Order: sequence, then structure tokens, then C-alpha cells
Amino acid sequence: MKDFANEKWTRRSLLTAIGLAGGTAAMYDAMLSMGYAANSDFSDPITLQGDAKGASVIILGAGIAGMVAAYEMRKAGYKVKILEFNNRPGGRNWSLHAGDSYTDIGGTTQKVDFAPGQYFNPGPWRLPYHHQGILHYCKMLNVPLESFVMYNNAALVHSAGAFGGKPKRFREVAADYEGHISELLAKATSQNKLDDQLDKDEKDGVLQMLKTWGGLDKNYEYRKGDQTSDFRGYDIPPGGGLMPGPVPSDIMPRKELFNSSLWNALYFPKQWDFQGQLFQPKGGMGEIGKAFGKLLDGVIQYDCKVTNIRQDETGVTVTYINSKTGGAPKTEKADWCVNTIPVSVLSQIPMNVGPKMRAAIDSLPYLPAVKVGLQFKRRFWEEDDNIYGGNTYTDQPIFNISYPSHGFFEKGPAVLLGAYIYRSGMRVYNFEALSAQEQIEAALEQGSKIHPQYRAEFMTGVAVAWHRVPWTLGCSGLWNDALREKHYADMCAVDNRIVLAGEHCSRLMAWQEGSVLSALDAITRLHKRVMSA
Amino acid sequence: MKDFANEKWTRRSLLTAIGLAGGTAAMYDAMLSMGYAANSDFSDPITLQGDAKGASVIILGAGIAGMVAAYEMRKAGYKVKILEFNNRPGGRNWSLHAGDSYTDIGGTTQKVDFAPGQYFNPGPWRLPYHHQGILHYCKMLNVPLESFVMYNNAALVHSAGAFGGKPKRFREVAADYEGHISELLAKATSQNKLDDQLDKDEKDGVLQMLKTWGGLDKNYEYRKGDQTSDFRGYDIPPGGGLMPGPVPSDIMPRKELFNSSLWNALYFPKQWDFQGQLFQPKGGMGEIGKAFGKLLDGVIQYDCKVTNIRQDETGVTVTYINSKTGGAPKTEKADWCVNTIPVSVLSQIPMNVGPKMRAAIDSLPYLPAVKVGLQFKRRFWEEDDNIYGGNTYTDQPIFNISYPSHGFFEKGPAVLLGAYIYRSGMRVYNFEALSAQEQIEAALEQGSKIHPQYRAEFMTGVAVAWHRVPWTLGCSGLWNDALREKHYADMCAVDNRIVLAGEHCSRLMAWQEGSVLSALDAITRLHKRVMSA
Repeated sequence: MKDFANEKWTRRSLLTAIGLAGGTAAMYDAMLSMGYAANSDFSDPITLQGDAKGASVIILGAGIAGMVAAYEMRKAGYKVKILEFNNRPGGRNWSLHAGDSYTDIGGTTQKVDFAPGQYFNPGPWRLPYHHQGILHYCKMLNVPLESFVMYNNAALVHSAGAFGGKPKRFREVAADYEGHISELLAKATSQNKLDDQLDKDEKDGVLQMLKTWGGLDKNYEYRKGDQTSDFRGYDIPPGGGLMPGPVPSDIMPRKELFNSSLWNALYFPKQWDFQGQLFQPKGGMGEIGKAFGKLLDGVIQYDCKVTNIRQDETGVTVTYINSKTGGAPKTEKADWCVNTIPVSVLSQIPMNVGPKMRAAIDSLPYLPAVKVGLQFKRRFWEEDDNIYGGNTYTDQPIFNISYPSHGFFEKGPAVLLGAYIYRSGMRVYNFEALSAQEQIEAALEQGSKIHPQYRAEFMTGVAVAWHRVPWTLGCSGLWNDALREKHYADMCAVDNRIVLAGEHCSRLMAWQEGSVLSALDAITRLHKRVMSA
Repeated sequence: MKDFANEKWTRRSLLTAIGLAGGTAAMYDAMLSMGYAANSDFSDPITLQGDAKGASVIILGAGIAGMVAAYEMRKAGYKVKILEFNNRPGGRNWSLHAGDSYTDIGGTTQKVDFAPGQYFNPGPWRLPYHHQGILHYCKMLNVPLESFVMYNNAALVHSAGAFGGKPKRFREVAADYEGHISELLAKATSQNKLDDQLDKDEKDGVLQMLKTWGGLDKNYEYRKGDQTSDFRGYDIPPGGGLMPGPVPSDIMPRKELFNSSLWNALYFPKQWDFQGQLFQPKGGMGEIGKAFGKLLDGVIQYDCKVTNIRQDETGVTVTYINSKTGGAPKTEKADWCVNTIPVSVLSQIPMNVGPKMRAAIDSLPYLPAVKVGLQFKRRFWEEDDNIYGGNTYTDQPIFNISYPSHGFFEKGPAVLLGAYIYRSGMRVYNFEALSAQEQIEAALEQGSKIHPQYRAEFMTGVAVAWHRVPWTLGCSGLWNDALREKHYADMCAVDNRIVLAGEHCSRLMAWQEGSVLSALDAITRLHKRVMSA
């Protein structure tokens, strides 16, 4: 690790300098040579070099990608206009508060009657620390961020078929899983069964390591006692004065734990996307979209449903109607177009692009996802169960309960995420087929198996099934390796005067960071085209 | 798990009811039968039943234990007075802000010149979620709490002797450690070497489990690729549009990792005390002490150095002098005494208690600890390295660097914990023997090995060595099993009219929760004595 500080270079200013001088490739080389594994593909400030000479650009969609594109291109001298389907900025960056309402594609309207200050994010809800692009815009927009609790050792793991359907604490599952595998590996090691793998001098080290990390006793066994309870929790924890205890807790038998699916939950917090530290905007994820919309006041035209996109040698003409009232089509013309409409919707809009981009647009399926927000009379998960934020997982269809990372210890009503179903498969489609009321009922029914307080404490709820959201018809682009190989480059390439952007044009599916990086990459390439035009 | 909600009982109200009816032992039985492993020995509200008939109590020390005792006994009808050595409430609950100064036992005064709003906690700094006692008083006192980041996957692990002294990210150490042990165990399993341990039907499950959790490839090997980089991070992470990458990162060779001490760091966040979710008071830990002091306005007499404690059949007489100016001794008399003076100090004060308590007082050594707070010009750990809160560990004497869990993304100066040395052994004593300036210099020197920005960004610092703090002469009671067996019950027993309280009278060494639970337990037993007197 070189001492850049002494050279009066911060790492970022150095990288920016390299980026300006040598472009992106040079910058990546430099990052690697500095001995850091990169946290992000983002580097600020983005600079579109050269004079756009007042060229105009029409941007379709005032989601994160569209607003990033608009902001940066306006800064570079472009005349910018955004057409947006909704009557608010943000797109999937969206929080529902008291008084809001939402109408799905079937015409069902839900009116949100949460308590004041309570909210629910139907879309994105967490910002990993390495998503430096979206974090940059939060800072720029002065959107205050607070800690998002992803992993909480006191949160629960539940399987209907394991341990009589009784939920276990994450700390118990983690400690017992790691303890049991440590014991197994210690046995194999001490009984010389891994002598083909481990040098003689390595063996003692491995045993000591497993003993410490796994909580094994002096015989390298994972047994009930203070050592294991210090990881998994006590029946009666160490107290003060002459209080009773400590009394250690029973461990889960290895076979029963391994045969359950509970250990699956240990996988989630290990993933790059979900590793701490994470953040959330104070007051709801939608605060980013709101602030961005304010910054772009006058640039965004709301309630526009795009019906046709046509490019020729002179520019791009977009036809649209009022998304609420219909009426006579209007047109808007510009030199260039950044199109962030989700391709689930875009595939239904006539647009004269080449066959490759068309094939890409028509080939990408969208991830189904349902989220249910439930408001309860009080924070029973905190008051009764001492769970402050974090995620509980179950093998029931609701999959994921998430406790609010804000308002800890407050009295009065609070909203939690009562279901988050986002994996593909019939389970999600079945759930999506339910009405909003049925989805809320299912979240209550299944959640009650984990939190028996649910029924008595429930007040109100809201459910959003993303395949039924009129302006996205799905949660996010659902790439797999084969699709990516065949269509991704064509999806992202500039087609004459049109470039697509959004999370579907990124490798960060369903993440706002994908939208940001896609937009920055798309406008950088479009700008090059403009400069050489 | 019974459905108490349907019976209109919250768990807590039920426990309180049981506690009131049947006392503590009945309550513990009830907690266990409800199928929960307890999170805490605390249950609120504490109720001292029966009329104290205006009995008076003198409490020595306005730390957390003393103030809890004063508040609860006053509520139960006692006449209460606290004598406190310092000119502020809180004791070890203490935050240093700009303008504060601290003088150690050698007479060296440090003046704190942090930027406005910045602070450093020389004493306690984190509140685990299961410390329900201290959390209860935070709520009661309206001390706002915010998330404390204990474990951050992006924080660093450093060993001078490993990997050329280059720090590694926690995520890299965790992924590679868990990957390598998974591969070893998968090998032993698939090569039938654990057939005496694992049933035939268990083996496939174990292999699948290790593959998922360990990030193994289809041959059950831990190899460089997308799967492992999804845990440990990429050299170039997945990006947007046609950005380069992803490029997976190299994994650390097993032998080099296992032979290093880096895996030790994985032990810390596994411990019950350090498991998430954790909290900190907004504005510094000292906010609790301040708020408690305000609540007890008029009860606490500051600047009192106790010089003699004498009990007889009529009461307890405490002699004290002004802790700053000395002067003529004064006395204060009460019916009963709750004595929270750390026994490191108390052992030097004449007090007529029985030989058992005396032996206990004279036998308990105190844990040494040094903390160094460093203010830098900017949050380079966030801006350059994307570390937002959490702890870095090194095998250098400074041991622990901790990044602030508040003020994320702010511009301007910020304070981090530059050293936290609390294990016993010569390393701590050697560090304690340095002057404050030398301690700060050592923190800078060693910290520079991890963060090369240190020297260029440093502004000012403060160092507190707890064996030199005049009013504690150490960080906390340092019990071991043998000492606990011999002296703990005697330390905690009521000696005629005197009972001791504080973290040293608890099984939660150096934790404020120990002070709270000790105080509650001590006054409950003292009150019984009063009622039967």
C-alpha cells in the first residue's frame, strides 16, 4: 500500500486525475496497481469532455437512470427534457406514506393509511456501501442517510419442517452450524485423515483455529457450556450481583440442523450485495427520487405515456399521450434520446432500432417480486423479542420479514416488511396472482407462525406485486448467463441516436447502482457519438 | 411458542405480572417455559415492595450503578443522597468534547480541542441489544440511540507478519477462511473419511451445504471466480452498460491465511457481547450520565472524596473532603449505604465491614485499558477506503481501530478510536506507562501501517490510560474463575447496613449493563433487609 497521503494525493483525486488523462481503462489499471480490490466501478466527478454545442436530448423515464442522465448531460451543455409516465419522479425509487394511493394494472387501488411518519418501500430499500454511484448522488442531493441493519443475530430463521416449526435465532443457527462443522473438521484433522492435505506443522494450527472459532471444548467437541453459549446465547445470561445464572443453552443436534434448511439463511449476509455497512435514506428510499426531481424542476414533464419513438437523420421524435386522460397524441423532438423505459414495457412501444437491439429488448424477461408492508400497533418485535432491525427468513412463500432500521424504541405504530418474494418460480407467480388483500392476509397468516403477536397487533397493510405495476410490468430485468452472452452488448450499444439505460442495462440486476452506472456509461458513449457526429 | 397475543398478554407484561406475584425465581422459570432463551436478566419495572418509612440511604458514586440505585430507591420512598468524586455525573460513562480537560493521577492535564460536535468515549462506547437494563434507562431518560456498527465487512484485519503487512478486508478473510475449511471438510466427506461420523444420507446434504455456504465450485473446491468474489469482493465489480468487468479477485492461499493470525478477528463479532444489533447514544455515551444527573438534580453532591465509611447499629457515617481543594473533613449520615466506589479505590478507604467482604475488596485486580481518540481533517476511511463504521483489528499493540458510527459522509474533521488496548499482559502495562503524548504518537505510528493517510490528515488527539484515572485506578474488575469462586458472593452480600454495587459486582465485566443489574440486585436485597429490620 503506497503512501499517497504524503504525496498530497487522495486515492480518489489521483484516480480522477488518471481517469481524466487516460480514460476508464487506465483508471482501472491504476486502481489495481494500488493494491486495492475495487469497491465500485464509480468514480466521480464524471466529466463529459467537449462542447455539446447546445445539442438536445430527450430522456424517457424520470427514474434514477433518467435523472442521472439528465443531470449530467445538462451539466455538459445539453438541452434536456424528460418525459415521465407517473406524476412523480423516482420510478421504482418509491416510498408509500399515509395518503398515498397506488393503482395496479388491473385497476385495483390501494389507499395507504399508515400512521404519520411511517412508510413502506415497494421497490429498492437498501444501499450497500460499495454502491458508490448512488451514494454519490445521495450526498450531492443532501439526502440524509442512516444505517440499514441487514444482519441481526437476534433475528429469526424459520422452517415449517424443522424443530417443530419453532423459529430459531440467527445467532443459534450460526453458532451451531459453525460449531458442528468445526467439530467434524477437527475430528478428521486430529485422526490424521487429512494428512494428504495438511502438513504436520499446519495441523496444530488448524485445530487451535477451529477450537477458537468454532467454540469447541478441550477435546475439540462442540458441547453445551459457557463457550458455546457465548456464541449462541444463554438460557439465563450472566447477570449482576447474586442474580441466578448464567445457565447455558442447549445446542441443536447436528443432524437435525444440517437436515433442516435453516443453514441456508447463513448464506444471505455473506453475499457482496448484502454485506455491511448498508444505508437507507431517512424517511424512505423515495427521498432520493424526490430530491432529484426537485433538482430537475422544469426538466421533467409528468403524466406522459410514450406511444412511439422514431429516429431519422435529423433526430428522434417521441409521441406520447397523457397517461391518465389519454387524449390527442403530442410529439417532442430532440437530437438524441436516452431511453430508460423498462424493456418489459418498451417491447410494446414501436421504436425503429436495428434488429439486434430489438431482439435484445424482446428477449429479456422480468423478475417477478411481491412486497407487503404491514403496520402494527406497536414494535412487538423490539419490545417482546428484542429484535431491532434486520431480516428474518422462512421457507414459507413470504420468505423474508424485515424489521425497520429506524425509529428504534419508539412507541406507537410501526411498519415492517411482511413479505418479500423475489425469486423466480411458481411460488412467486402464485403469490402475484392473489389480490392485494389476499397477499396481505397471506403475509399475516404465514407471519403469525413466526410472530404470534401478528393478529392482535395488526392495523393495516399494502401489497405491491411488480408484474402488475403499470409502468414496469415486473421488478427488474432477469438476465441469465446465456441471455447475457447473446443480447447484453446489443441492449447497451448506441443505436444511431438512441441509447438505452437502466438497471436492465447493467450487471447489477434490480439495484439502483445498476441504473446509475448504466446511465453514466450510456451517456459517456452517447456523448462520444455526439462529439464525432 | 404460545400465542400470548391472543390472550392480550405481551410477553413483558406477562413476565412482569409473574415477577410481581412470584418473585424473580418464578419469573426465570416462566421465561424458560415460554421457549425463549432469555436475552437479558433485566425486567422492568423494578418494584421495591413495602414502605421504606422514610429510611435514608447514602450512595457513594454517581456512576451508572449509583444513579440507578438512587433513582429506584427514591421512587420507593427512601431519602437519597449521592456523594460523587467528580464534578459531573456518569463516572466511567463519559465523553470528551471540545473544551473538556482531563487530569490523570500523575497530574498531567490534556485539553481536548476537537472540532465542535466531535467527541471521544474514553469508557463504554457500545450498547448490545440484549443489555435491556441500560437500554431501559436510556428510554426512560429520553436519550436518543442510533445504530452502532460493530462488524463491517469492509473494515480491515492486519498483521505485521502476514501478507507483507498489507491489511486485508474482513470480507476477504471471512470468505477465504470459510471457503478453505469448507473445502477441507468437503474433501474429508466425499473421500469417505468421515463415514464414522456421517450417515450415508447425511453426506450429500453436508456436501451441498458446504458448497453453498463456502462458495465451492462443482468439484467442491474453493477457487477464484464469480462465486468466491461474490463473497470476498471483485477486483473489478459488476458494473453498468459496457463497463469492463466483472473481474474476480485472487483468493489467499490456505496455508498462508491459516498460519497468519488474521482468522482471529473472525472470533470477535461472534461473541454474544458484540453481536448485532448494537446502539450508541447520539452525541456520545456520556449523554446517559448527563441525563441521569439532571434527573437526580439536588440528590448528587459533587467534588466529594470519601475518606472513611463507618457503620454501627444506628446507621452509616461517611466522611469526605473536597476532591479538588481538600479542606476540613465533613460527614454525612444515613440509615443505609449503597457503595459503588470501584474496589481498586475502595480498598484504600477505611470501612468497617466483615473480613469476607474485606478480603473480596482487597483481592480483586483491575483490568488495564488504554483508549486513544484521534481527530483527522477528513473521513479518509470513508472517502478513500469506503469504510463506514466498524472495527479494524491489528496484532500491533494498538489492537483496535474503530471508525465512527455517526456522521457518515460528513465533510470536515472527525474523530476515530485510534487504539483500544484492554487485554491483560505486559503489552498493555507497557502502553499504560507511556505519556499521553507518547500514546498518541504510538497510535499514529502503528495506525499508519494500516492507513497511510494518518500522518497527513492528523489534527489532534487524547489518550486515557485507565490505571491512571484518579477515581477508578483501572478499567474494570478483573475476575477470573478462581477469584469468582472464592470472593464474588462475599463481594455482593449485604454487610449489615452496607451493600456494594457496580460492574465489579456483576458477571458482565466492564459493561454498563453489569452496573445496572448489580445495582438493581443490590438494592432489592438491601430493601429486603430494611423491611425486615
